[in-house]
Amino acid sequence: MGLALIDQDGVVADFEQGLLDKLSERNDDAPRIELADRRIFSAREQYEQVSPPRHDEVDAIMHAEGFYAGLPEIPGAKKALNQMAEAGHEVFLCTAPLKDSPWCIPEKVGWVVAHLGPEWLPRIIITRDKTLIGARHLPCVLVDDRPGITGLAEPLWTHVLFHAAYNQREDGPRLSCWEDWPDVLGPLL
Amino acid sequence: MGLALIDQDGVVADFEQGLLDKLSERNDDAPRIELADRRIFSAREQYEQVSPPRHDEVDAIMHAEGFYAGLPEIPGAKKALNQMAEAGHEVFLCTAPLKDSPWCIPEKVGWVVAHLGPEWLPRIIITRDKTLIGARHLPCVLVDDRPGITGLAEPLWTHVLFHAAYNQREDGPRLSCWEDWPDVLGPLL
Repeated sequence: MGLALIDQDGVVADFEQGLLDKLSERNDDAPRIELADRRIFSAREQYEQVSPPRHDEVDAIMHAEGFYAGLPEIPGAKKALNQMAEAGHEVFLCTAPLKDSPWCIPEKVGWVVAHLGPEWLPRIIITRDKTLIGARHLPCVLVDDRPGITGLAEPLWTHVLFHAAYNQREDGPRLSCWEDWPDVLGPLL
Repeated sequence: MGLALIDQDGVVADFEQGLLDKLSERNDDAPRIELADRRIFSAREQYEQVSPPRHDEVDAIMHAEGFYAGLPEIPGAKKALNQMAEAGHEVFLCTAPLKDSPWCIPEKVGWVVAHLGPEWLPRIIITRDKTLIGARHLPCVLVDDRPGITGLAEPLWTHVLFHAAYNQREDGPRLSCWEDWPDVLGPLL
């Protein structure tokens, strides 16, 4: 039995698909980056490199009311989270909000209630520094699509990368899809 | 240099005064408990014991839109938090939201921005289980008015009780007012 910390964007909520949908709606002629071609974790940074640059649009979309509330689900996430909890693991959502958006935190919380159910509300941890979260004496994993997570503390968790095109060259344990959780996370918990 | 985790309600935001003000507004003839006579951490529980009971009113007030946003400041908290940060400590707000209120989380976050400043937004940690927060290799304190904080983990922090009438009989390190932080927290950090 262990502690499973699960990132929200890119792991249970499909930030990348949501962003691509919004960019597609806006202007069909402007360049867009297909999900398989995303190479930099920060979408904003990669859209700064297209011609003409669209990073201001990316910023505007991420900071607009309704964006986080409207993200689709990552397939299999809800089922896997419930299976992990049923298997006796302590499962928490662990999410780092935008620093400068009034919508981000309430919409992320609302998303969890709407998509995973209100029983997950007490299991949300909101923090900009994920290295501060863990439990001594319990095996811990952090499932997150962001490579190289650092912070103030030496983390208590093992980072398992949730697969995305922009993290495919990173080393370390990797969860390619939620169906694989028992094989990948099971031995670590 | 250490990690200071600072609870929000009853430590920087004056939940008790806010609640008493709302109860006073509602009905001048109904019983109310002065702050010095609060004996149980849960206001709801103590208001269940007055005659006639007012715990339903307490519940309604706590769950109403605007309650958390409108709380007054605990005197000296803002100054002390800034002084701790200037002294080189890592200071985070660490708050456990209501499980069943759509207003609590966004209003707590809004309160921090409005009263402490937007620079504190990245330093908010929202979690129902505070034992999961800490940093190995750093001295840690949790300043909290709630006695007997437990959770999944053996905590990395020393609990320093922030004084209130309802916790006056508890043992352990105690911060009586924010002006005392250098003497009480300094040696622990």
